[in-house]
Amino acid sequence: MLIGSIEAGGTKFVCAVGNEDYQIKDRAVFPTTTPAETLAKVIDYFKQFDLSALGIASFGPIEIRKNSSKYGYITNTPKPHWKNTNFVGPLQQALNVPMTWTTDVNGSAYGEYIMASLANEHTDSLVYYTIGTGVGAGTVIAGQLLGSLGHPEMGHVFVKRHPDDLNFSGICPFHSDCLEGLVSGPTFEARTGRPGKDVSLNDPVWDIMANYVAQAALQTTLTIRPDKIVFGGGVISEPFLIKIRTAFEQLLNGYLELPPLDQYLVMPAIVNNGSATIGNLALALKSLNA
Amino acid sequence: MLIGSIEAGGTKFVCAVGNEDYQIKDRAVFPTTTPAETLAKVIDYFKQFDLSALGIASFGPIEIRKNSSKYGYITNTPKPHWKNTNFVGPLQQALNVPMTWTTDVNGSAYGEYIMASLANEHTDSLVYYTIGTGVGAGTVIAGQLLGSLGHPEMGHVFVKRHPDDLNFSGICPFHSDCLEGLVSGPTFEARTGRPGKDVSLNDPVWDIMANYVAQAALQTTLTIRPDKIVFGGGVISEPFLIKIRTAFEQLLNGYLELPPLDQYLVMPAIVNNGSATIGNLALALKSLNA
Ligand SMILES: Nc1ncnc2c1ncn2[C@@H]1O[C@H](COP(=O)(O)OP(=O)(O)O)[C@@H](O)[C@H]1O
Ligand SMILES: Nc1ncnc2c1ncn2[C@@H]1O[C@H](COP(=O)(O)OP(=O)(O)O)[C@@H](O)[C@H]1O
Ligand SMILES: [Zn+2]
Ligand SMILES: [Zn+2]
Repeated sequence: MLIGSIEAGGTKFVCAVGNEDYQIKDRAVFPTTTPAETLAKVIDYFKQFDLSALGIASFGPIEIRKNSSKYGYITNTPKPHWKNTNFVGPLQQALNVPMTWTTDVNGSAYGEYIMASLANEHTDSLVYYTIGTGVGAGTVIAGQLLGSLGHPEMGHVFVKRHPDDLNFSGICPFHSDCLEGLVSGPTFEARTGRPGKDVSLNDPVWDIMANYVAQAALQTTLTIRPDKIVFGGGVISEPFLIKIRTAFEQLLNGYLELPPLDQYLVMPAIVNNGSATIGNLALALKSLNA
Repeated sequence: MLIGSIEAGGTKFVCAVGNEDYQIKDRAVFPTTTPAETLAKVIDYFKQFDLSALGIASFGPIEIRKNSSKYGYITNTPKPHWKNTNFVGPLQQALNVPMTWTTDVNGSAYGEYIMASLANEHTDSLVYYTIGTGVGAGTVIAGQLLGSLGHPEMGHVFVKRHPDDLNFSGICPFHSDCLEGLVSGPTFEARTGRPGKDVSLNDPVWDIMANYVAQAALQTTLTIRPDKIVFGGGVISEPFLIKIRTAFEQLLNGYLELPPLDQYLVMPAIVNNGSATIGNLALALKSLNA
């Protein structure tokens, strides 16, 4: 059986075809231009295969409430051309297979949850953060994606400002100094004039970043009590995660018993940003069996 | 059928007996002194009734993982005499009926969830905050209490400090200026020298409080996307909630579509702090039917 996956990002669409054992059989990447152009390429690509289902994980915000007339839409994104775009509708019409529809971070969270199950980890619940061009998170609890009124938007919470960072006003167009406004990739350019990859890990800006990400992890820990928190996205690396763990431990101050932090605050188990593809295959398979 | 309920607080234990229609048949209150003394009174009280089950909601932190050898214990509470106390064990031995065991705020959250179901509200998920001597919250998602590694401790998250409150260092013994350290009842004494009930609602301290509570509600909204958020505890009143809604709306800045805020950020549906009693009855009933 073949299942399709679309990971729709702001710069590119990653399409893949896999089977029920999560083996990837084919893969293609298309730039994110206009909806008409990009979706046409995606449709042409998947028409080559005899798909049984398709899993889609998209940048957002998106409408995921099945009872909404806008189900399957990208809603009020600032991204040019994509505001209020029917995404699932045209695909459904052209491909006519069962489809699942969730956010990119939900797809990644679900992929990591499935991988933990396959590895026989005891993981009932998990949060997946991406720290990239934007900041977002998805949560799986007992095999279910969280969010009843809509998908979470955990990138836009407020955190306590770091004393050495009070002059930085933050770059979120909605909230200035929400989490995304303080730790997304482009904040490196805004704070230092250089892209993050050119800022040495010894630069104090990384400690400020670690403090904020640790506060977010602490909020999640105290709110959800997940079995683990996974961090992906271009800003994340194992050395940065070490700083995050140190900051987290200081903030928590022994208040809760948690697993060893190197097993609790972790990189994705699925390498090369592949979490969402596996998550999409799994969500589509689950919908077939539902 | 008769079901017992214990709401164990730091100053008093509220015991009640009700039936499967949530009608309260009897009620008794005992001061929280030592475990031996208080639990003996509770046992004597319930021995008068032919209980089928008992629901317990306790101050914390408590051990709720069934596979732990400390299940049923109050763990590292700062409250004198109660640290590392086996709570469920002696009750189980003396009363020998099925018992449920959760936190006070989880009990309240579940009571409000049940009440919403009985009122045919479409409430799949709900968060209940108490802002009293301490700050805490419980969450129900699709009928289940949240928390896989343990119960949430949402009172101890960090928030962005209010510009007019930077000189207040906060009173949480673990984290200084976490949410509880900034908005629990005793912060009124710490900031103004007067108890909260004597501080006029026009005093700017209430706006600072509203901003912090609104940030907590925003964190919860963005993380959980619940159908509603209920606020209980001595600090909460409808006029204060109006300030909280105003602050919340400013912070959210139109980022998400939500229900009208006067239906989203609300007082308990169950009056007189009765939420936990109803929640206990419901949880105990559910355990009988499981
Ligand atoms: N080594 C690095 N250190 C810090 N930031 C980085 C690094 N590499 C990439 N980034 C930043 O990560 C962001 C891209 O994140 P990524 O997750 O790859 O893409 P997207 O979020 O667009 O899907 C950019 O802002 C980029 O500058
Ligand atoms: N009208 C009020 N305004 C502000 N704070 C109040 C008011 N009434 C009581 N409080 C505060 O609420 C706290 C008690 O909260 P409550 O929920 O009643 O009890 P507990 O948390 O101990 O169960 C105390 O710190 C008290 O000063
Ligand atoms: Zn924001
Ligand atoms: Zn604290």
